[in-house]
Amino acid sequence: MDSYIPTSRTTLKRRPQRGHYDRETVHAILDATFICHVGFAIEGQPYVIPTSYGRDDDRIFIHGAAASRMLRLLAGEVPVCVTVTLLDGLVLARSAFHHSVNYRSVVIIGRAGLIEDPVEKAQALRVITNHIVPGRWEEARQPNDPELRATTVLELPLEEVSAKIRTGPPIDDEEDRLLPIWAGVVPMRQVAGIPEPDSLLDPGIEVPESIKRLSAKG
Amino acid sequence: MDSYIPTSRTTLKRRPQRGHYDRETVHAILDATFICHVGFAIEGQPYVIPTSYGRDDDRIFIHGAAASRMLRLLAGEVPVCVTVTLLDGLVLARSAFHHSVNYRSVVIIGRAGLIEDPVEKAQALRVITNHIVPGRWEEARQPNDPELRATTVLELPLEEVSAKIRTGPPIDDEEDRLLPIWAGVVPMRQVAGIPEPDSLLDPGIEVPESIKRLSAKG
Repeated sequence: MDSYIPTSRTTLKRRPQRGHYDRETVHAILDATFICHVGFAIEGQPYVIPTSYGRDDDRIFIHGAAASRMLRLLAGEVPVCVTVTLLDGLVLARSAFHHSVNYRSVVIIGRAGLIEDPVEKAQALRVITNHIVPGRWEEARQPNDPELRATTVLELPLEEVSAKIRTGPPIDDEEDRLLPIWAGVVPMRQVAGIPEPDSLLDPGIEVPESIKRLSAKG
Repeated sequence: MDSYIPTSRTTLKRRPQRGHYDRETVHAILDATFICHVGFAIEGQPYVIPTSYGRDDDRIFIHGAAASRMLRLLAGEVPVCVTVTLLDGLVLARSAFHHSVNYRSVVIIGRAGLIEDPVEKAQALRVITNHIVPGRWEEARQPNDPELRATTVLELPLEEVSAKIRTGPPIDDEEDRLLPIWAGVVPMRQVAGIPEPDSLLDPGIEVPESIKRLSAKG
């Protein structure tokens, strides 16, 4: 399957040209960052909570303390929406009206499932950790049984999912194009700075390649 | 009023020390970025959609096409949640379990109201534009009547609102602190790049100070 099947809930009605359903595009956006916003409702009131995630093939994992209200609720397989957004630029048109933003986003809807098997759970945690910092899981002290028990991991399948992308310059009205007003795009991106070692760290312990790569990318 | 009143829906239960309710902290987070995630439910299914916003005193504004499904729904004063998140750093502990993220976030819940008066609407659009790029509204061609009519603007009061902040180094267990594993924080931030002029722009039109300031901040 090269593409997710758009449903009435994931089909973009306005500006359908910005909608993308192919796996490659969806996966590339999900792999380009690691913070998502999780939406769920309690007694009709929606809540949106940021958290980290990892992707493995056609599912994402989120995790947290077993005591987390959000995770306990979601483990009950209530409807959820997970949205991932990358801000790529400010689009400055000559008219205030045509100002816009360049971005890539993915919206996943569905129901999350609880990962109970300890081996699967550790594997999912490895996916999340290495999604954020490739190779970090293998460097870190692995979780012990009490830590695994204190952690809840959920999986959300990529089934009902869509991507939305805006790229390119501002699109002003014909009659505005000669106005003496600066127009263009200011690119935006997230960057990693210089690693700050923990004050308790033995100064002989060097910054590993996994961490150096983050700052080099930025 | 220096502080918002925590309610049962905005009080942090786990890690209450990360919760903040004072106006200064909430406003500073809201003013540090301009993309929020809006949560709403349709027939029990939550949706989370990214959009830009602006803040004016104790309310935020969001806007979009009058035809937008989300805005039409929210204008009906259904329960909404708007969340703003700033990623400040990756927190790399010696143990996989204590890995974390430094961040600042604000969660606003309530009901949005439609701004109908054209003068108020233009003023709210000015707030949004200048929240993103201070001074840009005054440089751009202002909206005409058809553009104003084609735009829906909603206000959401800052009443039921909380901030959540994690800062500082990793907190490893005592017995892990001498492990020969690098630990520390990798700071993360969003930066603006070099402005890219629109290809149709007269090369004699210089980048205005409002835009230069964005890249200088980055």
